[in-house]
Amino acid sequence: MPQYLKLQPPFIARDHFLSQIPAPHPAIEMCETVDSLGRILSEDLFAPHPLPQFPRSTVDGYAVRSGETNGASESLPALLRLAGEAPMGKIAVQSVLSGEAILIHTGGMLPPGADAVVMLEQTQLTGSDNLEIYRPVAANENIIQVGEDVHTSDLVIPAGRRIRPVEIGGLMSFGVTCVRVNRAPRVGILSSGDEIVPPYESPQAGQVRDINTATMSAIVREAGGVPVDYPIIPDDPEALYQAVARAHAENDMVLITAGSSASTRDLTSEVVARLGKPGVLVHGVNVRPGKPTILAVCDGKPVIGLPGNPVSALVISGLFARPAIHKLLGCTDPVYQPAITARLTATVSSLAGREDWVPVILQPSEQGYLAEPIFFKSNLIFNLVRANGLLHIEADATGLTAGEMASIEIL
Amino acid sequence: MPQYLKLQPPFIARDHFLSQIPAPHPAIEMCETVDSLGRILSEDLFAPHPLPQFPRSTVDGYAVRSGETNGASESLPALLRLAGEAPMGKIAVQSVLSGEAILIHTGGMLPPGADAVVMLEQTQLTGSDNLEIYRPVAANENIIQVGEDVHTSDLVIPAGRRIRPVEIGGLMSFGVTCVRVNRAPRVGILSSGDEIVPPYESPQAGQVRDINTATMSAIVREAGGVPVDYPIIPDDPEALYQAVARAHAENDMVLITAGSSASTRDLTSEVVARLGKPGVLVHGVNVRPGKPTILAVCDGKPVIGLPGNPVSALVISGLFARPAIHKLLGCTDPVYQPAITARLTATVSSLAGREDWVPVILQPSEQGYLAEPIFFKSNLIFNLVRANGLLHIEADATGLTAGEMASIEIL
Repeated sequence: MPQYLKLQPPFIARDHFLSQIPAPHPAIEMCETVDSLGRILSEDLFAPHPLPQFPRSTVDGYAVRSGETNGASESLPALLRLAGEAPMGKIAVQSVLSGEAILIHTGGMLPPGADAVVMLEQTQLTGSDNLEIYRPVAANENIIQVGEDVHTSDLVIPAGRRIRPVEIGGLMSFGVTCVRVNRAPRVGILSSGDEIVPPYESPQAGQVRDINTATMSAIVREAGGVPVDYPIIPDDPEALYQAVARAHAENDMVLITAGSSASTRDLTSEVVARLGKPGVLVHGVNVRPGKPTILAVCDGKPVIGLPGNPVSALVISGLFARPAIHKLLGCTDPVYQPAITARLTATVSSLAGREDWVPVILQPSEQGYLAEPIFFKSNLIFNLVRANGLLHIEADATGLTAGEMASIEIL
Repeated sequence: MPQYLKLQPPFIARDHFLSQIPAPHPAIEMCETVDSLGRILSEDLFAPHPLPQFPRSTVDGYAVRSGETNGASESLPALLRLAGEAPMGKIAVQSVLSGEAILIHTGGMLPPGADAVVMLEQTQLTGSDNLEIYRPVAANENIIQVGEDVHTSDLVIPAGRRIRPVEIGGLMSFGVTCVRVNRAPRVGILSSGDEIVPPYESPQAGQVRDINTATMSAIVREAGGVPVDYPIIPDDPEALYQAVARAHAENDMVLITAGSSASTRDLTSEVVARLGKPGVLVHGVNVRPGKPTILAVCDGKPVIGLPGNPVSALVISGLFARPAIHKLLGCTDPVYQPAITARLTATVSSLAGREDWVPVILQPSEQGYLAEPIFFKSNLIFNLVRANGLLHIEADATGLTAGEMASIEIL
């Protein structure tokens, strides 16, 4: 029996692997803020001015001196004189004098003299300028004060944040229309195998089209990296070394989907070991599918050898490639793995000590979501196309029983 | 009290709104398969040939006649003569004759005469060509048969599927390097308000920079639409009508973030009503934040009027804009809303009958995730920037208590 696999638990393998990737200093590039969705902010953003910059009303109503509404009620309203209207988008110059109120709209600037706004719904205008107020307001009620959102020099967006729509809004609120972001890591993608031909070629008997390069490229793109594809490599040690060394030199990270035979995997491991220190960290992970995974860091660049079948590629990318890209990106956000809870329609067994990932078909039902495990050979791409979820069975479990609730990661 | 709001429950409002959007016939465009990630497939893909196209080994081992391994064990191995090696990537011409085995690698073509493969680990080579086999194999063991993944003419990817990395792999396996996809809907985005200036301008006293246009554009892009931005509209009925009518004519959908005052909202509703039948379907939704939402379909195009503050924009986009874009895209995949379960650190109250959405800060802890609700005025963008989750309180609940577990949507 081949001895090349010293199986490591996936999370220990991952921590070891990630810890050997040096803290990144990603190159920085400029980007229009409107095009920055999903990019990683390079610098802390400090507020150049307070927000809001002037006191604003949060409702439609009347700016008043709050003390003059004390004790107001339906039966005994406070009576004020409507003295004018605060203009939208202009400085409010007219002061609210004693006994007066000024009409104000949501977002309008609070006039001098006023310290609160009474909601329109709690008032009635009788005649042209007699205002009845049916409820007292406290000082500052229905107002956003200067700096209530942020004060000048507050750290408002930290470096390393992945830019979402709300960050774009936040940047725009300070007029930051151009922003420094981390350059996305380039990930070289290599597939090897004498039986593999490019997808645009017609395979001869015994040959198959390469699906790994395109699949891995898409996975890299989803994770925030820039995939760089290389031509298919024949099963030849020197050709493999030349191709891998070139991809290693030209990129920030390398993914190799080698042939799945044991000899090819050993070959990949030897080739990767020649690329630089510390070299191969993990060769074999206690996970199904994906056992013969190679995790290496060579001269500061992560290199991953993946089994050449679709399910393994998906699982191993999620466990190792995505977090590595995330680290190279300089992204400091915690990673949450959202999932939905579903009821298993069949029993799934698992070896204790081994983590299992099983593709499932999720379906809504009257009783919540159902998850139907797909049992199949992991070489079959179209069974995976049918799946829309992945069931994770922890290493300490020996399986899950039909009818049990399980957490399903959405594919 | 203004009577313009006839509050509808959000899910009823959404169903009514979506049902009025005509079944789409999106325009089709060609796309390189490698660039098709996230696009919607326009046509059913039927398998042009079986997969695999030849019987393949799933392991490293020896191709044999399974009957000749009957009864094999460690103590009494079956003895076969190693007669050769099946080449990778070529047609296997050498037959396995009676009493023979042929070395084969994972993915290699099964030689004629053989009907199973014995795993390398269950054999030992003694001398140059004497092979001992320690376990019997059944017919078809460790083999993928022709068509075991798909048969010719099988429907392998349905029209309307959102293309993921595995679909790209599936397309490549048939040599489909170019694919027909649905054109993404164009969504016109309009903001109005006398107090709003473009982000690149310095606001004067009483003015604020427009954050809604950029935020909504990013949300539209995330949802799969193409945002089309229009200049800021002053609070003037005719200007608003001209701008909205133009955006309606030029796009497949329109999003208007109008001023937040009641009068502006009424104005928006009147303007939208003039665009075409059936017109305004919903004016007021029983959700916080986002109550004064306008949902309309005019001449077959959805038009949404959103409250002009960041939290409402986010919540209302998720409830109404994203599903509308999804429908216009012609995407037929079910939508799953993944979430993570977290323990609330504070009590959140809610009115019975009203759905509430509360931004939270998620944090990992020893006891699982914690969710800290952020209580704030929804006009404050930077409080939302701090949030990384949204807590959903169902309409029939009157709140959630500190310490309760809750489902949190990741932002």
